Amino acid sequence: MWIKATCKLDFEMPAPTPLVLMLRPRSGANQWVAKESYTLIPYVPVVEYTDLYGNLCQRLVSPVGNFSIQTSAEVMTTEEVDVDPGAYFVEVQNLPESVLLYLLPSRYCESDTLGYLAHDIVSNSLLGYDQVARIDRWVNQSIRYTPGSSNYPITAEDVNIRGEGVCRDLAHLGIALCRSISIPARLVVGYLYDLNPMDLHAWFEAYVGGRWYTFDPTQNVAHGGRIAIAYGRDASDVSIFHQFGAGEILTSMDVHVDLIDSEPDGEYSQLRDYVDPGS
Amino acid sequence: MWIKATCKLDFEMPAPTPLVLMLRPRSGANQWVAKESYTLIPYVPVVEYTDLYGNLCQRLVSPVGNFSIQTSAEVMTTEEVDVDPGAYFVEVQNLPESVLLYLLPSRYCESDTLGYLAHDIVSNSLLGYDQVARIDRWVNQSIRYTPGSSNYPITAEDVNIRGEGVCRDLAHLGIALCRSISIPARLVVGYLYDLNPMDLHAWFEAYVGGRWYTFDPTQNVAHGGRIAIAYGRDASDVSIFHQFGAGEILTSMDVHVDLIDSEPDGEYSQLRDYVDPGS
Amino acid sequence: MWIKATCKLDFEMPAPTPLVLMLRPRSGANQWVAKESYTLIPYVPVVEYTDLYGNLCQRLVSPVGNFSIQTSAEVMTTEEVDVDPGAYFVEVQNLPESVLLYLLPSRYCESDTLGYLAHDIVSNSLLGYDQVARIDRWVNQSIRYTPGSSNYPITAEDVNIRGEGVCRDLAHLGIALCRSISIPARLVVGYLYDLNPMDLHAWFEAYVGGRWYTFDPTQNVAHGGRIAIAYGRDASDVSIFHQFGAGEILTSMDVHVDLIDSEPDGEYSQLRDYVDPGS
Amino acid sequence: MWIKATCKLDFEMPAPTPLVLMLRPRSGANQWVAKESYTLIPYVPVVEYTDLYGNLCQRLVSPVGNFSIQTSAEVMTTEEVDVDPGAYFVEVQNLPESVLLYLLPSRYCESDTLGYLAHDIVSNSLLGYDQVARIDRWVNQSIRYTPGSSNYPITAEDVNIRGEGVCRDLAHLGIALCRSISIPARLVVGYLYDLNPMDLHAWFEAYVGGRWYTFDPTQNVAHGGRIAIAYGRDASDVSIFHQFGAGEILTSMDVHVDLIDSEPDGEYSQLRDYVDPGS
Repeated sequence: MWIKATCKLDFEMPAPTPLVLMLRPRSGANQWVAKESYTLIPYVPVVEYTDLYGNLCQRLVSPVGNFSIQTSAEVMTTEEVDVDPGAYFVEVQNLPESVLLYLLPSRYCESDTLGYLAHDIVSNSLLGYDQVARIDRWVNQSIRYTPGSSNYPITAEDVNIRGEGVCRDLAHLGIALCRSISIPARLVVGYLYDLNPMDLHAWFEAYVGGRWYTFDPTQNVAHGGRIAIAYGRDASDVSIFHQFGAGEILTSMDVHVDLIDSEPDGEYSQLRDYVDPGS
Repeated sequence: MWIKATCKLDFEMPAPTPLVLMLRPRSGANQWVAKESYTLIPYVPVVEYTDLYGNLCQRLVSPVGNFSIQTSAEVMTTEEVDVDPGAYFVEVQNLPESVLLYLLPSRYCESDTLGYLAHDIVSNSLLGYDQVARIDRWVNQSIRYTPGSSNYPITAEDVNIRGEGVCRDLAHLGIALCRSISIPARLVVGYLYDLNPMDLHAWFEAYVGGRWYTFDPTQNVAHGGRIAIAYGRDASDVSIFHQFGAGEILTSMDVHVDLIDSEPDGEYSQLRDYVDPGS
Repeated sequence: MWIKATCKLDFEMPAPTPLVLMLRPRSGANQWVAKESYTLIPYVPVVEYTDLYGNLCQRLVSPVGNFSIQTSAEVMTTEEVDVDPGAYFVEVQNLPESVLLYLLPSRYCESDTLGYLAHDIVSNSLLGYDQVARIDRWVNQSIRYTPGSSNYPITAEDVNIRGEGVCRDLAHLGIALCRSISIPARLVVGYLYDLNPMDLHAWFEAYVGGRWYTFDPTQNVAHGGRIAIAYGRDASDVSIFHQFGAGEILTSMDVHVDLIDSEPDGEYSQLRDYVDPGS
Repeated sequence: MWIKATCKLDFEMPAPTPLVLMLRPRSGANQWVAKESYTLIPYVPVVEYTDLYGNLCQRLVSPVGNFSIQTSAEVMTTEEVDVDPGAYFVEVQNLPESVLLYLLPSRYCESDTLGYLAHDIVSNSLLGYDQVARIDRWVNQSIRYTPGSSNYPITAEDVNIRGEGVCRDLAHLGIALCRSISIPARLVVGYLYDLNPMDLHAWFEAYVGGRWYTFDPTQNVAHGGRIAIAYGRDASDVSIFHQFGAGEILTSMDVHVDLIDSEPDGEYSQLRDYVDPGS
C-alpha cells in the first residue's frame, strides 16, 4: 500500500539552539520512499549524517524566534504485519553479530531486573515467537495505553509500576521483557496509518526465527501501514528531536498519515530537447 | 544556490534483469537535499542499501519491456567551488584512516604506473594543492574533452595515449596522477548546473590541506552548482546503473539541471484538526 | 612505557552457557599491542567479532564444569595521561558525528536528570576541560571509592544517593554529569598499572578541545600506564563477560599488571633456510 | 588443527618512509588467533586501524637504516577446505549487500572484459559452485604457476596472455572470471601450511550457496591449514606492505608455517596473591 505521511514541528526559540533531528525515513528492505521533502522555515544550514543504527539525522542550529520543520514522505509499505506463531528462538551463540546489541539493557529498558516477571508471563510458551506474542499481549492487557500520560520517557520498571503509559512506554516494557529472556528487541519510531489520535508512534520489533517481527502492544491487533523513521535500543537513541540547552520550546506538532492511490508522480522536468547521453 | 536536477532513464528490457542503481543524492556536509523523488514506471519492488562508500544504491529486477526510472532532487549547494592555492600536502602518516583507500590504484586509475608522468607535470610546484591544480590544468590542456567519444570507461593510461575522452576519462587521469604522488583522489559522479551539453557529469576531488577539494579537468574554470550523487575510487565503483546479464538496453537518458529561486515548498498536508502531541 | 597485563577468569559451569567476552585489547591511536595471547582451557570453538564501538568481542558456549580463560597483553602505552586545562568546549553543532552518541543518556548514566547537580558543580568554571576536571574532582571527593561495595552496576543517580561505589560507579556518575552539560563522555574498561588492590579497572573519557581526555575519579591524580580493553556508553555496553542464562558462575578472577623493560621478543621462528620471496 | 606462522621482513631504508602494512591476522568466523606477536626492530611509534574490508593495518614511519618487522601467530584453523559441488548460484538480487562489492571489476581483475572466456570455460556447468570449480581447474591447468615469475602484480588479462604467473596472478584470473558471470569473488592473502616453496600465499574465495568457499588455483587439490591475513577486491587492496616514496627497499623476507600440537600456552603470570574481584 502507498501512504503519505507528513509531520510539522513548530518551535519558538528563545536563543539559537543546536538541534539533532531524526525525521527522514529511509528506504530499506521493508519500505520504499518514492518521494519526500524536508523543509526548514526559515532555511538554515543543516548537515545530515547517519548514526550507528543507520538512522538519518539532521543537525542544525535553530534561528531565534519562530522556526518550523515540515517533512513529507510517500512510501510503499505492507498492509499487514507478518505474523508467524512457532517461529523458533535463536540461541545467543547463533544470533547475527549486528543483533547482539539489542540483548543489552538500555536507558529505559532495565532487562537486567525484569527477568522474574518475564518468566512468569511466558511460562509454558513455546520458545521464540510465541514468547514475544505472550509478552506483547500481556503488556497490551496490563498497561493502560493513555495518550498524553507522560511527557518524557519513563523506564520499563516505572511503566510496570504505574500501570499506564504512552506508546513508547508500552514498547519499552515489551522490549525489556524480551531481552530479559535473551530475545533481541528494539524500538521503532515512525508513522502508523489510521492511528487514533494521530501522532508519531512507537512500537517494537523482536528477533526470532532468523528475522525481525513487528509487535505493537498499544494495538489489540497490530496492523500494517507503518513507516519506520528510526530504530534504536530505546527512546534515548531515537528522539525525533533532541535539543541541547534551553527549556521546552516545541509549540506544536502536527502529524498526518493518508492513504494514496498509487505511486506518486515524479517531479520530472518535461523533456525539452534531446540530450546526448555519452558526454 | 538552490538547483533542481532530474534524470530519466528509459530501458527496453528483453528479459527480467537485475539492476543496481546509484541515482539518489544524499544530504551531507556539502549539500542539503530538501526534496526528492524516485519513480519506477511500472513500479517494481526495490530495495535500497548503502555501499561501503556511503552511496545510496537501489536494487531491483526490471520487468520485461519498457521500463523507466525518473528521479528529481532539489538541493542547496554552493555557487563556487573552494579554491585554496598553497593548501599543504598531508603526509601519508597523517592522513585520516578513511582517506587512505583513495591512495590505492584502482580499475581505471593505474597510479602505480604513472608516477613518471606526474613528477614531470608537478615539477617545481609547492607540495599539496598546487600540485593538484597543476595536474588538473595539464589534463585540461592535454586531453581533448570530447563528449560521446567513449561508450565505456577506458583506463587513465589509455586516456593519456588516446589524448581525448569524456568527463569520466579526464577525471580518471587526474585521479591516477594525484595518487601516484601520494595525494588521495576520488571520483565524483553527479549533476553540474550549466553543463553543455547537459548530461550526468564526473569530476574528481583531491585531499590536501586537511580536506577534500573539487577539481574538474573538463572545465577551464571549475564552477559550482554541483550535486554529488556518488563517490568512489573510480567509475567501477560508481556506475549510475549496473545491469547484470544481457546486452545494452538503455534506450534514452535525459538530464536537466535548473536553477530554482528558493527553498522548495514542502509537500505538507493542510492542517485539518489539532492533534495531541503526547500519544 | 611497556606493560604486561594478564587476566585469568575461572568458571564453574552447571550447564553449557553462551558467553560474550571483551578481553582483548586492540592496538589503536593510543596503545600498541606488541604481543598477546588468549587461552581457553579446555579449548572450545570461539568466534570473534567487532561491536559497534570497535571492541573485539569473543563469543563461545562454555563446556560444563571447570572452564578457564587466560589472557595476556604486552603493550606500549604512555606514562602520563594528557592534562590540558583551558581546552575548549566543543559546541554540539561542531562535534564529530561519531562522538554525538556519547551525549545521550544510557542505562547507568541518567544524564537527563542530573543537570541541576552538574550546573552546581561546574558553576564559574571555564567551559570545556575545566568543567570536566571540576566534575572529576567533585566525584573523587564526594563519593567514597570502596572496592567490593557493589556486585552489579548501579546507576549514577543511585551512586550519588549512596555516596560510595566501585570504580565503575564513580565513572558512571562522572559521565552522566558531563553529558548533562553537553560534553560527550564514555566509559573505558581496562588495566591500570599500580592499581591497589589490583583488578580490572574502569574510568572515563570526555571530549573537549577536539579530542578525548582521560579522567579517573577513583584516583587523586590520574596516572598513566593504562591499557584500554573496551569503550562504551556505560557498563551495559562493556561487560568483560556477559553470560546468558544461569546464575553467578565466576569462581575467581585474577589480574596482574607489570612493568616490562622493553619491547617483548617476537615469537619468530629461527631462520632455517632461505625462502624465495617472489612465489 | 593448530598452526604457527611467522613472517620476518627486513628493510634497508635510505630515508624515513611511511609504510602501511597488513600483517596481523585477526580472529573471525573461520580462524581463532590464540597468540600473536608483532615486533618492530628498532621500535618506532605505530598506529593500527581497520580498513573498509575489516583488515587490521599498521601505519608507521620507518627509521633510516636497518629496519625489521617480525610477526607470529598461533591459530586454530581447519584441516580441510569445504567443498560443496552443487551449491547454488545466488542471483544478484538475493546477494547480501556486503557481497555486492565483489562483483565489480577492480585494478587487476578486469571482469568487464573477460565474459567471453568465462562463458566458454563454464559451458554446461551447473550454475554456482560447479562453475567456480570449473574456472579454478581451468586456471590451474592453463596457467603455469611459476613462483618468482612476476615482481609486481599483472592484470588478469595479462596473466591469461602470458600463460604463467605467481599465486596472486592465478587468483586474479580466477576472480575476474567468476565476477564476469556474476559470482562474487575476492582475494585472500595469508599463510598456507606445507606450501612449497614456503612464502606468503594468495588464493581466492567465491560466494555461492549462501556463503564463501575457498579456491586455490595454484594447488591441484586445495588443502586446509590456511590463515587469512587480509581480504580485498584484489592485490591493490591487500599489499602486505605498501611503501610511499623511494625505491625497492625490502632486503629479505622469511616465512615459516609449522604445525603445533595443541593450543599454545598463555603468557599468564603466576598467581601471586588473591585479588578481590569487586573493586
